[in-house]
Amino acid sequence: MSTKPSAGQAQDRFVEDLTDIEDDFDRWFVEVNQKAGLVDDAPVRGCKVIRPYGYALWEACQDYLNPKFKAVGVQNAYFPLFIPRSLLEREAAHVEGFAPEVAWVTRGGGHDFPEGEEWAVRPTSEALIMTMLAKWVQSYRDLPQLLNQWCSVVRWENRPRAWLRTLEFLWHEGHTAHATAEEAEAFTLTILGIFQEFLENVLAVPVIPGRKSESEKFAGAQRTYSVEAMMGGKHWALQAGTSHYFGDNFGRAFNIQFLDRDGAHKFANTSSWAVSQRVIGAVIMVHGDDTGLKLPPRIAPIQVIGVPIFRKDAEREQVEAALDGALGTLKAAGVRVDSDWSENRPGWKRSEWELKGVPIRLEIGPRDIAAGEARVVRRDTREAQQVPLADLATVIPALLDTIQGDMLAQARAMLESKTRSLDSYDEFTQLVANNEGWGLIRWCGDAACETAIKAETKATSRNLPLAGVADPGPCLKCGQHADGPRWLFARAY
Amino acid sequence: MSTKPSAGQAQDRFVEDLTDIEDDFDRWFVEVNQKAGLVDDAPVRGCKVIRPYGYALWEACQDYLNPKFKAVGVQNAYFPLFIPRSLLEREAAHVEGFAPEVAWVTRGGGHDFPEGEEWAVRPTSEALIMTMLAKWVQSYRDLPQLLNQWCSVVRWENRPRAWLRTLEFLWHEGHTAHATAEEAEAFTLTILGIFQEFLENVLAVPVIPGRKSESEKFAGAQRTYSVEAMMGGKHWALQAGTSHYFGDNFGRAFNIQFLDRDGAHKFANTSSWAVSQRVIGAVIMVHGDDTGLKLPPRIAPIQVIGVPIFRKDAEREQVEAALDGALGTLKAAGVRVDSDWSENRPGWKRSEWELKGVPIRLEIGPRDIAAGEARVVRRDTREAQQVPLADLATVIPALLDTIQGDMLAQARAMLESKTRSLDSYDEFTQLVANNEGWGLIRWCGDAACETAIKAETKATSRNLPLAGVADPGPCLKCGQHADGPRWLFARAY
Repeated sequence: MSTKPSAGQAQDRFVEDLTDIEDDFDRWFVEVNQKAGLVDDAPVRGCKVIRPYGYALWEACQDYLNPKFKAVGVQNAYFPLFIPRSLLEREAAHVEGFAPEVAWVTRGGGHDFPEGEEWAVRPTSEALIMTMLAKWVQSYRDLPQLLNQWCSVVRWENRPRAWLRTLEFLWHEGHTAHATAEEAEAFTLTILGIFQEFLENVLAVPVIPGRKSESEKFAGAQRTYSVEAMMGGKHWALQAGTSHYFGDNFGRAFNIQFLDRDGAHKFANTSSWAVSQRVIGAVIMVHGDDTGLKLPPRIAPIQVIGVPIFRKDAEREQVEAALDGALGTLKAAGVRVDSDWSENRPGWKRSEWELKGVPIRLEIGPRDIAAGEARVVRRDTREAQQVPLADLATVIPALLDTIQGDMLAQARAMLESKTRSLDSYDEFTQLVANNEGWGLIRWCGDAACETAIKAETKATSRNLPLAGVADPGPCLKCGQHADGPRWLFARAY
Repeated sequence: MSTKPSAGQAQDRFVEDLTDIEDDFDRWFVEVNQKAGLVDDAPVRGCKVIRPYGYALWEACQDYLNPKFKAVGVQNAYFPLFIPRSLLEREAAHVEGFAPEVAWVTRGGGHDFPEGEEWAVRPTSEALIMTMLAKWVQSYRDLPQLLNQWCSVVRWENRPRAWLRTLEFLWHEGHTAHATAEEAEAFTLTILGIFQEFLENVLAVPVIPGRKSESEKFAGAQRTYSVEAMMGGKHWALQAGTSHYFGDNFGRAFNIQFLDRDGAHKFANTSSWAVSQRVIGAVIMVHGDDTGLKLPPRIAPIQVIGVPIFRKDAEREQVEAALDGALGTLKAAGVRVDSDWSENRPGWKRSEWELKGVPIRLEIGPRDIAAGEARVVRRDTREAQQVPLADLATVIPALLDTIQGDMLAQARAMLESKTRSLDSYDEFTQLVANNEGWGLIRWCGDAACETAIKAETKATSRNLPLAGVADPGPCLKCGQHADGPRWLFARAY
């Protein structure tokens, strides 16, 4: 009845069970989430339970982003879960975008709510936060207002997928108000820079920052910026973070008016921005392989897993002393360590910790002890080396840095080799159809062309890369003149 | 149009506005929350917005409790916001306790839910977490399961009050499953000990740990333990944390069954435990005075506020250099500092930072600079002293520790002097009616006596103190023999 069978046969099955990425990437994703203990299906339609090993990844994201936000002046706060219908309806484009996805509370404290007075379970909090800002902001002295909250939001989802699309999901949402349009948009881009730095340097997920098209921007925004990441497997795009500049749309809709230095009454300019639990999905899909997860050291809940090797009980004592000593040294050096003293066989343990994506496995057995060494195995390359026990405290932290850098380099190589400037519609169609990557294409900006491309290829405009340079020429779809840099088009999650 | 008038008249009004505690404690509580910028009314019935200065207090609670929970093996996870009606109804006593307070989602994704298939917005997560544990626990090897989540919960509230009673409130909820009843109940008490240590040593709020009566225990629990704190003003009790032992009630209701070492199938024994945002209300009500908040240094978002003193612009430069230097030294010593360079007058600033409860105010003006000193003022005692600038890095951290200790001692003196062993029903009735504190009384344990006491005095049984010693005698209400230690009875929030 143990959940961890120790027989050799069961051990093999444990690894064999995982579908190969080449065979079925979606199936692989479902299985790796379940087997590695990241999420589980919840007894609520469209929702998932985030298990401790998965939640620890989200905590690592919070631990990194929180100080970064605070360093640019953002303060955390908390706004209610519920938004009265009348407030949600105040900004027209906003409610139009969200209404179909809303879950409604219509009964509470034993009473039905009057028709029209239902509460939305927040799909996002602009309506509520802007209402409060209208109260708090009277003078230019009250600006900027830089607020953030960590919470969950609810948006109806017909095809749920772990991390990427669940009816309820974890995120943070930042909301700011500024005296000038320039300051508001500059802040939007400051945050986009934090998102890029976080994704690349912490999650080892390289991204393309850029501006969204009119059809893809956030409901109510003047401009939406995104960072787009290329997943493994089918090489689709994942929108990994967004930052919205609203101009004074919300300032006017919610009457956030202030007296400026020049004595004039003006409307505040606002922004909002978010990364969600989707980024965990990105980590899984960018780095994972046929044996399971590969976690970047900077967010791995366990960076080094100790596996004792012994056959006889007589050997156990010296192995335990040596392993405890090695892990104790690493812990003192700031490394997150754990050890596996379960009754499972070493081969089973190796498979399990590879599946869970722990960056380094450290094995110690009688022969290692005799040589004064430990066997150190990288998860990413599976390279093994013997390391003198006395050197662990210097070798392992350096190796974790190397792994972090190598994982980013490998993901960047994938992104770069599979992003192609294309001038042939046929070639682009083939690229997308064969899951071979992203196209950088000339687009005239006409929504009709964007719609036609989507209908014909299933690729959508991802963004107009901020680093793009003018490259005028004929629109890939209609042949009319396309000014400015190329647009990124790709299939997306 | 500035929100911070700098005229002398406005300055006086700022302080005068706060109602005296003696005059109207409830009114004082409302005002101090609003004026100190902790919370604001939300445009949603029964809900409050928690502003950055208030949320920082909750973050300080999280920062302390999280590592304490992890140190006893608890892992954070996240379970969905919604609980299908059928799951909530599985444990009979549990649903009976919560049903009247539930907010129901009855529509989502554009469709009405079928009758009977509504979703509760979680009032607590036993039903959902127990359902998952039934899936995860098959063997004694899978136990114990020690889980916690930080989230908000929703319980209908007809008389909302900031921090203490809001329709939605922030909390953490821990849920554990164990192989034996003994282990489960021991864990319940381990957590109660963490709560007590947290309240006393971090929030400077002394508490009485004890066991709840049958009528006051949690819906579905076999035993509920609480820590009870005495508030200032009316000296009512606040239940500041609870820890519930369920026996195998939930194990049976949710079929959490495991194969034990002895080969027998058994039901798991479970616990749950929580502190909520109420503890912030306790900090406010225990320590506050007629000039505003008094924050214990260990959770104060700002421990030292620097106030520059100068009349002429010519003085400003040297004051700024000296104040920046002093605060920089303190920051390097690990002290949380801020400074007030607003256009307001020093007197206004003093009032404002006293209102906000910052433990130490540090003033520097030209005369202080000439003497190589700073003026250091304690918020709790309002004592001022001149401290040589060179000594600040040693004097201030020590003074923060002294303030922390003195605040706890003062609160403990209140608790002890106003908790009285009483054997006269008249005296007890008077004590409660005059808001003079708590009674330790003999109670036979009969629910009829408890109900009568409540009806006649408005005091409820708070708990049976764990530290109580047998003190047999006649029940204060009925005169029948009351065995065991005395019970704590008091009016409560």
